[in-house]
Amino acid sequence: MTLRRLLSLALPLLALAAAQASAAPLSSAEILAQSSASDWRTPDPDNLLLMRLPGGPVLIELAPAFAPQHVANIKKLARERYYDGLAVVRVQDNYVAQWGDPNAEAEDPAKRRPMIEGKPQLPGEFSRPIAGLDLSPLPDGDVYAPGVGYYQGFPVASSRKLGRAWLAHCYGMVGAGRGDTADSGSGAELYAVIGHSPRHLDRNVTLVGRVLQGMEHLASLPRGHGPLGFYLPDEAPTPIRSLQKVSELPAEERPALEVLRTDTATWKAYVEARRTRREDWFLEPTGRIELCNVPAPVRAAAR
Amino acid sequence: MTLRRLLSLALPLLALAAAQASAAPLSSAEILAQSSASDWRTPDPDNLLLMRLPGGPVLIELAPAFAPQHVANIKKLARERYYDGLAVVRVQDNYVAQWGDPNAEAEDPAKRRPMIEGKPQLPGEFSRPIAGLDLSPLPDGDVYAPGVGYYQGFPVASSRKLGRAWLAHCYGMVGAGRGDTADSGSGAELYAVIGHSPRHLDRNVTLVGRVLQGMEHLASLPRGHGPLGFYLPDEAPTPIRSLQKVSELPAEERPALEVLRTDTATWKAYVEARRTRREDWFLEPTGRIELCNVPAPVRAAAR
Repeated sequence: MTLRRLLSLALPLLALAAAQASAAPLSSAEILAQSSASDWRTPDPDNLLLMRLPGGPVLIELAPAFAPQHVANIKKLARERYYDGLAVVRVQDNYVAQWGDPNAEAEDPAKRRPMIEGKPQLPGEFSRPIAGLDLSPLPDGDVYAPGVGYYQGFPVASSRKLGRAWLAHCYGMVGAGRGDTADSGSGAELYAVIGHSPRHLDRNVTLVGRVLQGMEHLASLPRGHGPLGFYLPDEAPTPIRSLQKVSELPAEERPALEVLRTDTATWKAYVEARRTRREDWFLEPTGRIELCNVPAPVRAAAR
Repeated sequence: MTLRRLLSLALPLLALAAAQASAAPLSSAEILAQSSASDWRTPDPDNLLLMRLPGGPVLIELAPAFAPQHVANIKKLARERYYDGLAVVRVQDNYVAQWGDPNAEAEDPAKRRPMIEGKPQLPGEFSRPIAGLDLSPLPDGDVYAPGVGYYQGFPVASSRKLGRAWLAHCYGMVGAGRGDTADSGSGAELYAVIGHSPRHLDRNVTLVGRVLQGMEHLASLPRGHGPLGFYLPDEAPTPIRSLQKVSELPAEERPALEVLRTDTATWKAYVEARRTRREDWFLEPTGRIELCNVPAPVRAAAR
């Protein structure tokens, strides 16, 4: 057999092997590494809050598609520097860190921190019509809701029967505390989920956004030892140095980051790679994925 | 109408009202308050580990019913004070805090911390036969497993088809780190879940127990900024002052606590009260409960 003949046999085999290798499913890290610029979006700086804590900055993306009135109010409060000098007043292990005015729902308005343009009470925005939301669904169901998926990086639960969709209490989600009535919240008190996702809070309280960066600065705070994790008088709350909209920061102080889009083929591939793990370490690839176990990735953007 | 006649009419009404009041479903806190001594169990001090960190003690209950070899090995290591002076070397936000020998899987045994009676490698104990486990099932399904329930306070997933049951990676569960092969773990490295429950790890790694008290001393540690949340050289790991079996502590240093039994009518009522919330604050009682959202309560016991 001539060399030429040998090569003519071998080359297609080599090509096949290469094709098989390239068809090997990618890990989630590889999918992100191979993503294109159009797979990422730059959040609107008018929907970004930067909260400066002593431990570092916390960056929150607001979700006006789900809580338009609360988001508008929180933006007003940020603009009037309502939160500056308030504190993280409650850190309950495996539950939430909460900040803002602890007297926001006091019956006596004189006890509340005064607002200028902000409103002290808003109707609950616990769910919204499912119509108009182009959700990227997840395939494996959910214990709490008939449907689950993602919208612009936010975890969403839904019910076609009810015709409603709502943000889900996953790790890092931010909500507006309220009293016992639906219309007693305003954004004057905010909380972030710092433990296993307390999905029983879904549709009970208004979620307003998601922490994109700096969760560790909330989740690693000392726990409070009063009821519900509120700090006791001898436990120092963590002061909020400032809380502002990113659009109102000087250009050089604006964080530059991108969030993986959740309406793309890349997102679908990413979900699938988290669902069926391809890293060598995994012996049982699972083949299932749960809503709060696939947070939308965030990366630093070139300025 | 005589007073006697009025009373004869009113008393049954009062009795009915009282009966209705007592039939009102109790909240989970009320169920615990009304529980009897026999609803609680005292963990075997031979299955309890006390890890002393600078922030405070962490108390872990081991689960020999699920990982007998790892539990036996960890007890030997605790007895030989293997962990003392090692450190928490990895804290990855929304994932795990990990402690022990970071070189436990080094190919060169000289790099590993020497063991006396402990074994440096054990077969993975990723699941066990479902037979012989009297599980208290949960009613609302699970994204990751066909069946879920509780056994002696531990969250358990199961498959009748496979005939297997396994501990689930809920918040506060403790596992034995391993390398890329199933038999590369030993308990020389341990981790606890500090974020949303990473259930994709189920059946991939050996879970050995659950933190009963002191989770905050792990979950509030500073996050590491190296790959996978390992501390960088300039980040100080948190030293382990000691890690011992409670049965080997002097009597006066032994923590006194009880865990709610999960094989009782009280547990069923507790689950139902967490499933359908009865506190005034809840407007939408949910009517669903997920495995990792109903950790078995722990309370201080009278000495």
